[in-house]
Amino acid sequence: MPKANFADLLIEQTRARRSQVVVGLDPRAELLPAEFGGAAPADAVLAFNRAVIDAVRDHAVAVKPQVAFYEQLGCDGMAAYAATIRYARERGLIVIGDVKRNDIASTAAAYAAAHVGAPDGDFVVDAATINPYLGSDGVSPFVEAAGAHGRGLFVLVKTSNPSSGEIQDLSVDGAPLYEHVAALVDEWGRSLRGHCGYSAVGAVVGATYPEELTRLRGLMPNAPLLVPGFGAQGGGVADVLPAFDADGEGAVVNSSRGIIFAWTREPYAEEFGEDRWREAVAAAAADMQRDLWDATH
Amino acid sequence: MPKANFADLLIEQTRARRSQVVVGLDPRAELLPAEFGGAAPADAVLAFNRAVIDAVRDHAVAVKPQVAFYEQLGCDGMAAYAATIRYARERGLIVIGDVKRNDIASTAAAYAAAHVGAPDGDFVVDAATINPYLGSDGVSPFVEAAGAHGRGLFVLVKTSNPSSGEIQDLSVDGAPLYEHVAALVDEWGRSLRGHCGYSAVGAVVGATYPEELTRLRGLMPNAPLLVPGFGAQGGGVADVLPAFDADGEGAVVNSSRGIIFAWTREPYAEEFGEDRWREAVAAAAADMQRDLWDATH
Repeated sequence: MPKANFADLLIEQTRARRSQVVVGLDPRAELLPAEFGGAAPADAVLAFNRAVIDAVRDHAVAVKPQVAFYEQLGCDGMAAYAATIRYARERGLIVIGDVKRNDIASTAAAYAAAHVGAPDGDFVVDAATINPYLGSDGVSPFVEAAGAHGRGLFVLVKTSNPSSGEIQDLSVDGAPLYEHVAALVDEWGRSLRGHCGYSAVGAVVGATYPEELTRLRGLMPNAPLLVPGFGAQGGGVADVLPAFDADGEGAVVNSSRGIIFAWTREPYAEEFGEDRWREAVAAAAADMQRDLWDATH
Repeated sequence: MPKANFADLLIEQTRARRSQVVVGLDPRAELLPAEFGGAAPADAVLAFNRAVIDAVRDHAVAVKPQVAFYEQLGCDGMAAYAATIRYARERGLIVIGDVKRNDIASTAAAYAAAHVGAPDGDFVVDAATINPYLGSDGVSPFVEAAGAHGRGLFVLVKTSNPSSGEIQDLSVDGAPLYEHVAALVDEWGRSLRGHCGYSAVGAVVGATYPEELTRLRGLMPNAPLLVPGFGAQGGGVADVLPAFDADGEGAVVNSSRGIIFAWTREPYAEEFGEDRWREAVAAAAADMQRDLWDATH
């Protein structure tokens, strides 16, 4: 039996949940609610993540743990990363590992096994982010593993940070570098198209650059887009609309701090405050779900 | 007291040990000598690494564990990575973490804390490799942490794999992209120059592209170079010479499989065989040490 395709799973879950929301699990230990203050940092992070997952599970289609915040806590942090992945999957959420891994061929295969390989791996997720700077032979082991295990990839094309243009916008034959990378993503994804028309090889394109988003949607018509930069980084609903196709599909949008620390931000801070932080998290996710869905359907 | 500078440490240790050899610790569980067959994979990897470190410690200046091979083994693998770092440092070797991390600013700071931060971090090393695709605001948190803790960085500029040119060689204003990245590396390193003249911000330039190596040595006169691709990947002594300055300094050369699996390769396989694999590893490291030192001094 052929493996399920990640793009089909993503589209199917998006429809079923009527949500294009990805909640970024970037738990900075120093920003957690006071109730987690007594525990060791990795334990606090895991307990917080579980509470966030419970609060957002009816509003999100996926969670995206950012592995940097777990690596920072050493071996205990990586155990919390693994436990967070398990918890989210058990609750029916897609898990996107934001790992941005990259290396040459034989080493890329080891990373691929770690993150999009066999299901018993501690760090294996439904889809992982990867960095394309090393070119095709650094990417193809990820594509092979994703195909073999029914998993997905999101390749960095145009990131949401202010300096992203320093390298990504350099002009190559009259077009910015990121458009050349987009063409490679389109090529890398050809072998992994699902029934839905989208490929299991997607792309990361920041919400903070809406014009580029429009152009890149066109250059990668079969790539699901993972759009970071929404909310705390400044992107709004209008900025992310170009990521979606005419049916309002083909993209998911991530918010991290704007949801998981919603009780520290308006309008949720005033309404809920820290003692009702779970409700603030749920409300922020529900608002984002509704705003995106209404704008695209 | 100001923190030591990583470039000064690297030059000082290179002189003291008369070695420019970096031994890549890429322990593929399926390739280990039969004596490690009974143990759990992560335990086998750690025991093998310890034996390799003991065998090469008089011939190498540094070891470079490639974290992909540890991530592949999950949480147990990351514990083996942390224990490998500790073991090598206790034995006086510099440790370069080949992690190729990269992310936007606030997340890059978490990665920087994980890999080049405070000494009590499980995964903290003397220097780490990073990927520049996200530009300055993704790199500066690493530079700040490296400066604060006396650690170093090696930024990917031109990698050793066959497809590296697909993105890295694209022509920007008449020069390949990697030269633009090299100019950024030179700029990023200005604040972290040591007494030796070199910066704690170095670059990765593959041995498999000797002409590019010559050009990049000139474009980054203050960047220590980490040169992979020697040995199993095809680079020889003549290929790496352009990485060194007139004093035979400013670069270190990595070999992974060519040393750690030397007993499976000629000329060591015939002379030693698997039962004397430790001697094969030591001999391969000693030969590389002598060949590089003689060619550069």
